[in-house]
Parts: sequence; C-alpha cells; structure tokens
Amino acid sequence: MTEHDYKYLHQINSPADLKKLSPDELPAYCDELRHFIIDQLAANPGHLGSSLGVIELTVALHYLYDTPDDKLVWDVGHQAYAHKIITGRRDQFSTNRRLGGLSGFPRMSESPYDAFGTGHSSTSISAALGIAVASQLRGEGRKVVAVIGDGALTGGLAFEGLNNAGAANTDILVILNDNNMSIDKNVGAMKEYLLGISTSARYNRLKDRTWNVLGRMPSLRRFIQKVGNGLKHGFLQQSNLFEGLHFRYFGPVDGHDVRALTRVIGDLKRLPGPKLLHVVTVKGKGYAPAERDQALWHAPGRFNPETGELLSSVPEGCPPRFQDVFGHTVLELARRDPRIVGITPAMPTGCSLSIMMEAMPERCFDVGIAEGHAVTFAAGLAATGLVPFCNIYSSFMQRAYDNVIHDVAIQGLNVVMCLDRAGVVGEDGATHHGVFDIAALRPVPGLIISSPMDEPELRRLMMTATGGYGAFVIRYPRGRGVTPDWECPLEAVPVGRGRLLREGSDLAVISFGPVGNDAAAAIDRAAVDGISAAHVDLRFVKPLDAKLLRYVAERFDRIVTVEDGVVSGGMGSAVLEWMNAHGFTPRIEMLGVPDTFVEHGTPAQLRRLCGYDTDGILARIRAIAAE
Amino acid sequence: MTEHDYKYLHQINSPADLKKLSPDELPAYCDELRHFIIDQLAANPGHLGSSLGVIELTVALHYLYDTPDDKLVWDVGHQAYAHKIITGRRDQFSTNRRLGGLSGFPRMSESPYDAFGTGHSSTSISAALGIAVASQLRGEGRKVVAVIGDGALTGGLAFEGLNNAGAANTDILVILNDNNMSIDKNVGAMKEYLLGISTSARYNRLKDRTWNVLGRMPSLRRFIQKVGNGLKHGFLQQSNLFEGLHFRYFGPVDGHDVRALTRVIGDLKRLPGPKLLHVVTVKGKGYAPAERDQALWHAPGRFNPETGELLSSVPEGCPPRFQDVFGHTVLELARRDPRIVGITPAMPTGCSLSIMMEAMPERCFDVGIAEGHAVTFAAGLAATGLVPFCNIYSSFMQRAYDNVIHDVAIQGLNVVMCLDRAGVVGEDGATHHGVFDIAALRPVPGLIISSPMDEPELRRLMMTATGGYGAFVIRYPRGRGVTPDWECPLEAVPVGRGRLLREGSDLAVISFGPVGNDAAAAIDRAAVDGISAAHVDLRFVKPLDAKLLRYVAERFDRIVTVEDGVVSGGMGSAVLEWMNAHGFTPRIEMLGVPDTFVEHGTPAQLRRLCGYDTDGILARIRAIAAE
Repeated sequence: MTEHDYKYLHQINSPADLKKLSPDELPAYCDELRHFIIDQLAANPGHLGSSLGVIELTVALHYLYDTPDDKLVWDVGHQAYAHKIITGRRDQFSTNRRLGGLSGFPRMSESPYDAFGTGHSSTSISAALGIAVASQLRGEGRKVVAVIGDGALTGGLAFEGLNNAGAANTDILVILNDNNMSIDKNVGAMKEYLLGISTSARYNRLKDRTWNVLGRMPSLRRFIQKVGNGLKHGFLQQSNLFEGLHFRYFGPVDGHDVRALTRVIGDLKRLPGPKLLHVVTVKGKGYAPAERDQALWHAPGRFNPETGELLSSVPEGCPPRFQDVFGHTVLELARRDPRIVGITPAMPTGCSLSIMMEAMPERCFDVGIAEGHAVTFAAGLAATGLVPFCNIYSSFMQRAYDNVIHDVAIQGLNVVMCLDRAGVVGEDGATHHGVFDIAALRPVPGLIISSPMDEPELRRLMMTATGGYGAFVIRYPRGRGVTPDWECPLEAVPVGRGRLLREGSDLAVISFGPVGNDAAAAIDRAAVDGISAAHVDLRFVKPLDAKLLRYVAERFDRIVTVEDGVVSGGMGSAVLEWMNAHGFTPRIEMLGVPDTFVEHGTPAQLRRLCGYDTDGILARIRAIAAE
Repeated sequence: MTEHDYKYLHQINSPADLKKLSPDELPAYCDELRHFIIDQLAANPGHLGSSLGVIELTVALHYLYDTPDDKLVWDVGHQAYAHKIITGRRDQFSTNRRLGGLSGFPRMSESPYDAFGTGHSSTSISAALGIAVASQLRGEGRKVVAVIGDGALTGGLAFEGLNNAGAANTDILVILNDNNMSIDKNVGAMKEYLLGISTSARYNRLKDRTWNVLGRMPSLRRFIQKVGNGLKHGFLQQSNLFEGLHFRYFGPVDGHDVRALTRVIGDLKRLPGPKLLHVVTVKGKGYAPAERDQALWHAPGRFNPETGELLSSVPEGCPPRFQDVFGHTVLELARRDPRIVGITPAMPTGCSLSIMMEAMPERCFDVGIAEGHAVTFAAGLAATGLVPFCNIYSSFMQRAYDNVIHDVAIQGLNVVMCLDRAGVVGEDGATHHGVFDIAALRPVPGLIISSPMDEPELRRLMMTATGGYGAFVIRYPRGRGVTPDWECPLEAVPVGRGRLLREGSDLAVISFGPVGNDAAAAIDRAAVDGISAAHVDLRFVKPLDAKLLRYVAERFDRIVTVEDGVVSGGMGSAVLEWMNAHGFTPRIEMLGVPDTFVEHGTPAQLRRLCGYDTDGILARIRAIAAE
C-alpha cells in the first residue's frame, strides 16, 4: 500500500468524518490506519505494538461515541496513536514524540479529544470515574469509557478504581484490552484468570460466532434484558471476579473484528451501571514481525517496514547501556552471594534483569506493574536476610514513595533500589522523566543515595550496596555510558565518599552521576581559556562527604553543581544546606532541571534546553570566571 | 473482674506458655486479655476497637503456630495489642504509645515476634509473600500468615499482593479479618461483596454449626481432600473473586469462637498453596459501648471502663480542632460554590469531612483506604471543571505522590489537597508523622503549597484555593489551633504572599504553619531579654514571597526558620535556596525535624526533642543574639 492507495485515510479528519463511513467500510479504514502507523513509526520511532493492537477498538469507539463530549480515557496512553490520527492530528503525526511536536501520550492541552492525560499505568478507571461522577452531578449525560490493558490491571490503582466504580452508580464502561502482555509477558494470578477465560474451548468456539449472532440481533440490550443472565451465561463466559466487584462482565470478544466490536459496544453503550467488556487483542496485530516478538516490537526504534529489519544498529566498541551493566552485574553478584535476588515491576527487558532471569529464574521476580508491591515485597525478602535488588524506573518509583519510607527505610532493611531511567528520559516526556527522585528521597532518614559517573562505578556501587548498610539507592540514566571496557573488578567503595577528579583554583564544579562527564568536558574546554576549575564527583548525595565538601568550601567561594534532576531540593540544595550548616557561604550556581515540567525531545535536546549539557555548563563556568 | 481474678493472664509470658493451655481454657484466657486491654486503654489511650476484635484470632494463631519462627504479619498493626501481650510485653503494656515505651504497632526492633513493622494499611500480603518466598528459597519451611482487615483490602497494594501471591507457589495464609469497618464504615464494591457472603442466610445458618461440625472431624484437610470442592461448596460459601486470584477460599467463620478458630486454622495450616480464610469479627467485641459506636471507639481516648464514659472532655471556650475548621469551612464553601466536592480516603470522621457528608452526601466521596485513587479520582473530577477538596493525612499522601505529580500537577488541575496531620502527630509514631510533605512536594512544578498559622488563616487559604490557581496544597497539624473565635469571613489571600507579623532589628524568624505560634511566643520571651527578632509567617512555601524574603535578606544576616517537618529539603531549605539564587548569604538556623525517624510520644514531647518547641526556638534565638 502506498500513499496513493489510501482511500479513506486523508478524508477522515475528525470522528464526524469517520461516522460517515458505512460499517462495511470500517475494516478497510482500519487497514489504512495500520499501514500509516507502521510507515510513520518506521521512520520516527514510537510505541508500535500496542498501537497496532487497538486500531479496531479505537475506530469502533470513535464511530459510536460523540467524542469529545463523550470521554475516552486511554490507560498508559502510548496505544493512542490511531486515536490521535482520527482526531485531527494525522498531518502532525510525523512530529510524534519530537521536540515541539505531538506528545506520545494523550495530553489535555493538546486536544479536546484527549479527555485525560496519561503516561503511567493504571490511572484510567479512577480518572474516568471522576469524569463520570462529575457529569452525573451536573446532569450532563456524558458517556465515559476507560480502555485499560491486562498489564495495567495488575496495578493496585486500577483495583482501587474498580472497587469504587463498582459501588458508584455511573454508567462507566471499562474496556479490558487483553493482549496478555505488559511490555514483557504479563504476570500474576489475574493474568492466569483472564487467560483461562480467553483460551477456553468455549471462547474459541464462540468467538467467531456468538457475538456476531448476538450483534446481528436487533439489540443486545433488549436481548439480554429479555432473556436475562441465564442465557447470557449460556452464550458467554462468566467472570465472577469482576462481577464480585459489581461490574457486569461481557466477553471475551475478538478485538480485531471491527464490525462485531461496533455492534457489541453500541449495545453496551445503552446499558446502565458499571460494565466491563473483555476484548482480546494481539499486540502488534497485522504486522508479522511485531506479532512474532512482541516485547522487542513494543517500541522498536527505526525499522524497514518492508522487511522488518531493525535499523538502530550499535557501532562496534560502543559503550554499553547502563541497564545492561546492571543486568550483567546483578547476575555476577548473585553467583557469588546466595542472598541476592532480583525484582522488577514488569520491566525485565527494559531494565535488563532478564539477563539474571534467564540464568536464575528462581531468584528473580517480575511482579507485574506494581511498584508499591515490588518495594514492600523486597522489604519482606530483606526482613529475613536476603538482599533484594529491586530495579524500578525513577519516575515509577514515585508510585512506591511510601513503601520506601514505611517498609524499607524505617526498618533499616538492606533493600537495594536501582533507579533506572533517572534524569530526563527523552521522547516519553513529562510523565516519564526521572527527575524528582533525589529531592524526594534525600529527606528520608537512613537512606543511602548514590549515582555512578560511569559503568565501572555502577558496578562498584552495586557491590557496595550488598554490604549491609541498609536501604541503598543507585540512580542511573537511560542510555549508554562512556566506558566500552566496563568489566572492572567488583570492589566496594566507602559509603559517603566522593571523588576529587581534578584540582583547580578558580572555582569548583560538583557533579552527581553520569552528567559528570559533561561537566568534565566543560572543564576541559574552560581550561583552554585559562579557567581552572576543580571537579568533584559527589557519588553519594546521602550521606554527604563532609571531608570533601570542607575541602571545596575552604578553597572556593564559587561552586557550580550539576545534576540530572530538579534543582529544587536536589543535590545542589543538599550541598548548599551543608555549607550553611557548617558556616560556609559560597555562592552556588545550581544546574539541573528548573521548576517546570520538561516536555519531550531527545535527552540531548532537553539537557541543552535546561542548560546542563556541556555547552550550558561551560557557559556558567565562563560567566562565573568573568565576574 | 479485677487483678485478682486473672487466672491465666500472668502465667502466660510467651506463646510457649499459651500452648500449655487446653483448648477449653482458651475462651477464659481470651476474656482475661479482653479485660486487661480495656482496663489498660481506659487509662492509657490506644486503639481499642480493632484490638478487641482480634483477641480470639490472636490467641488461636499463637496457639497453633511456632512463632517467632513462623511469621505473623499484622496489617496496619494497631490491632496487635493481644499479640504484644502474649509475646512477653504484658508488663510493659502500660507504656504503650508513650515516649520511650512500646510502639502502638508491631516493630521488628521491639520483638522477634514482630515479623514486620506496620502502621500504614495494606502492606501485609506483600511483606508476608516476601517472607514466604525467602523461606522457600532457603528451604526453611516457615509458615507465614498475613492478617488483613476488610478495610485494608480496599488499598491497591493489597490487591497487588494478592495478585502476586496467587501466582506464587508458597503456602501463605491470608486471614481476612472482616468487621465491615475501616475507622469508619468500610465502602466499595468489595465491601458489598464480602457483606453479601457474611450476611447470607446460608452463612447465618451455618456459622454456629458447620464449622464446628467440620472442626470436630478428624481433620478438615483430609475431609476436604477426600470430598473435594463440591462438598466444600455445599457447606461453605463460594468466593470466585478470591478464587479468581488463585487463592483457595475458606469461610466465613465466626472470629470470636476461639475453639472453632483453632480447629479450622490448625487444619488450614497443613494445606499447601495460597489460602484465604474469611473471618467475621465485631470491632469492639465484648465491650458494649465500643460495639455500639465503632467509629468513636476506634481510638476513644481515656474512658471509665465501668460506665463507658469518655473522659477526654474539652474545656469551654477551647479553640477548635483544625480538622473541624476544615469540615465546617468546606461545607460553607460548598454551599456557595456548586463546583466544590469533598473526597476522603476512609477518614470522614478523622478529617471531619463527615460534617459536609451529612449535609451534602451526594457531593462527598469516601473512596476507602485508597489514597492514590482519591487523588486521581479528584483529578478526573477537576478535569471537567469541578473543584475537589481531597483531604488526606500528610503521611498517607506519600501513597499518592505519583498521582499528585502525574495526574494533578502535570495537568495543572485545580485539585485542593488538604493535608491533615501534617507535622509530628504524636503517639502513632514514626510511621504516621507527616513530616516529609513539604520536602517531597516542593520540587513539583506548579504546585501551590501553603500552611495556615491559625484557624482563620485555614479558612482564608481554603477560600483562596478555589480561585483557579491550579493544584493547591494546604497542610495543617493534628489537634487544636489557638483561636476560639475562628469563624472569620471567608476572604481569599494573595497566592504566594506571606505576612510580616513583627519587625525587629537583631534577627529574623521565618515560620510556616501553626508552629509560628511557638515562634511568636519565643520572640515575645526573647524581647524580655532585649532581643529584637522580626517574625515572618511565610504562609506559602511555594511560590515563595520574593518581596518579603528580600525585605528580610536586606535587613538581617541571621535567620531562624521554624517548621513542623523535616529540615532536609524543607521550608528552611527553600528559603536558603532563594537567598543563594538572589545573591544573599545570611546564615540560616533551620529548626524542624532532624534527619532521623522520630518515634512516639506526645506532640509536645516530640517537638521539644526536635528542638522546635517554644523553649527550643528561644534557645536558638538567644544563642544567635549572643554570638
């Protein structure tokens, strides 16, 4: 299919245009959408698999509902590409996830069709219930639909939403988009429960037949009302789990038969009360490579759409990704130390715990999208003497903030919390930047908070963390480090000890984490101008290295701090507090993320915008030296 | 019953002693425990209702399990009084919740019988699973039991735990202590589901009969294994909700028949795999006043054990509790402004939203113990133009940290978050102090963060918060203010504007919140010594009042900051950051909670220990003036 073959795509600029199609034209439009998304994402990377999985569902919803008056809430939201294309953003779609372009997630500020901004998982039912209750209070009669994946359903927030929605008297429709996947394979008892339903002989016998039969009846509603639940259950599966939560359960239905979907959802639309429709979809549907390896094609980077060849090749001798250094090192540590276990909330591939999982499946735990549980479960493991490495993306650790304080820190348990994706993460944007962790965790008593400047340092910090010092945080960013030859010996470093990397005479730069390499480059370039800057890699923001800070304070009255996180309350603030408490009054220039939500773009673009890339650091050094 | 009437109580100093009793002696021991707890709590307040509700269960568990090798995890933990008394802490029990005395919750550091520290709700299944998995990995064969209330089961973390435990291959036993209550009446679909089971005719027909019959059989295990699920379901209820999560469900059983409980749990103990036993209890069981008004007797303060008369009388003309000023004011605002709605996660009485709930039930939402949902639900309400007042205790807001960032702040929604119990809360101790909120929320872009120095200020800030400024936090402490005549007119104040309460010449004191009254008293006393201190009530820690800070900075080189929260990253740190960013270098003495977990005691004792009561502030002022 080429541009010229599109019959519908360019005619449909809004849901109103979509509604002009006859039901029989919908499958062809779905094909075109699928083709367009594959073509676009081949050149401009994004979330492919989940978007392909909900094309028919998206078309059915906009075909049936009066959006934007009716409200669709997309859980997580990275599957909302077809939604964006249908709702007037087709021609901007090539800017998806780029600086200044469309967000990769629904954003209320981007379109009235984006009823609620998402990004993190499991929020949709709570938000949709709020919208539905507000509509009811005001007598507006809006229809409200939440679309949530089976992966997102493992998050406790989704259960809290179901528990409340089931008891509230709204007409909310929850569509369970069941593809048996998070980014990796979904896990947990609920997954097995859903799988039991959707793979049962009865479902397979019925899926092509019953719903079509039902759909062809004048109205499913009248049908169900007339014949009652007995017959409903005769045709469909039972789900006492959801019915236990006071949802009327319908399904499972084939999520790729758009005509059947429009008939079924059209009927459910008129049913009062909380309802759950179980839709079975295939992640990557319609693109063979993506169907074959669903985890890889969740967000595959650039690819050749004809061949399915991935184009993001890594040059020979390139430094490793921090996540892979974590993955190899945790396995290496676990081989030496039987106390070590690994935990991930649904990110085995993303954080590379998968490396240990393959070698030691019995000592690794993917707990699903459940960050709070991941940390409290780790605390339970640690309470009996194990040393869990719990790897959570920094922005998702916000979900486990209380668990870190209440279950780990208060009890002084030796849980190692590795915060991957710390700092600006790039194209995922405001919801995903891991920029609050330093400021949020620094006030928690007893925590050790560290960040490695490079890969060997990550290994040394991981080794150190097994030493029984209590709760130990190691934050490191998305992407690659700087050290191709990273496999150094595993040696512990002294807790709370930073590194004086370079002496100087004009000013001091204190950095924390890999951004220290940008600081070092800036210091090198400043030296060419005759500016002599000392460089400290703080390594631990808690406890602080008092000796090293005193060394700096006694020699310098101008300090630049550099961190990949919010300035407010962050590492620079910690240094400033220390100086104030010890009677020093240097002027400190704090570089990092300013007090605003940073949008999407490449990490390099965003660091530049925030003024803490090499050029930004150099500019500050020069300005200070010129004063 | 008097001291002399105790036959068993003083003989039992450990579970080993308990095991010497015959099953027929257990009811009498339970009576003695009940009496002892009532007598003790009459004089030394604590959590009465929930403790009385689990006496038989506690006795049965310690009678059957080999604690502390087997592990009992008490969810929330304020029901663990009988557990503490049985496990060697009877004679210390009079120090419960007092400074230096026993904690009101299980603490690993207090006793080997306290398998995991609790305080916040819904952690037990996750922690118990961690302990069970660790035991399994090490081949230790420990038995692990989590006891969780139906209220705590509404927390998403509990669901995350169930979802994982159901798929894991451990022999964990979850005991659902179903009393149909949180602190107030429990809410939600799950509650209705459980109530449906436990009030069904079949349960009532069976509760005195079947389990006793079953219990008298040689072994429930053999019985069930032999006859299978068919007969089990013939006798007992079905629960496809829990069975959907791969738990074998048993119950409901009468939680106050200790002999039946020992028989049933004794049999379940030997059953492999994840099991849930549904135990029906009565909060306040065995003490008529507590059974009658379960919310009031959750933690009743001092009382006359004979008459049930509450002794914590409030003097005439006493200032109101902040929570009541909130409760009356939110109703007053709601009467004027139809956009206003109220939300509480299971604390209608505790935060006094109950006042609005009675008058406007349709505009108030108790969402159960589900802080994350409370905030995201509020965001959904706000997304369509309503103005939700979401009241959450400060330490429980830690549960909703991501929701505040991701669902409220990023979208700039006008959600008003009233953080009750901010600052040290007193006897509940380390898990409950609301001391991290300022430091954790200050780095979040766009938030407005305020605290009233007194009751009229609380009313003014609440009025201000409805003005469309976006996400608005108002923090205030547990307890009473200082203004008996608090019903001032409802007027908005300028956002980000503090108050210069007193001019001075020697130094400046900047305070935030009601602790400002202690600062004012200290300043008055310092004035007697001839020390002239200015006093600023900052009122907003975000945005900061630049004009007022500049006024201070230009006049003073010594500043004392006073806050009821952690110093690290807190209000004083914000002032210091501002000074540094604007080229000022005053020396700032920061008073507040130091970098350690504060234990239990009265709020006055704890503020004194931390050095920010009136005497502590005065001492700092004097020391600075003397330099």
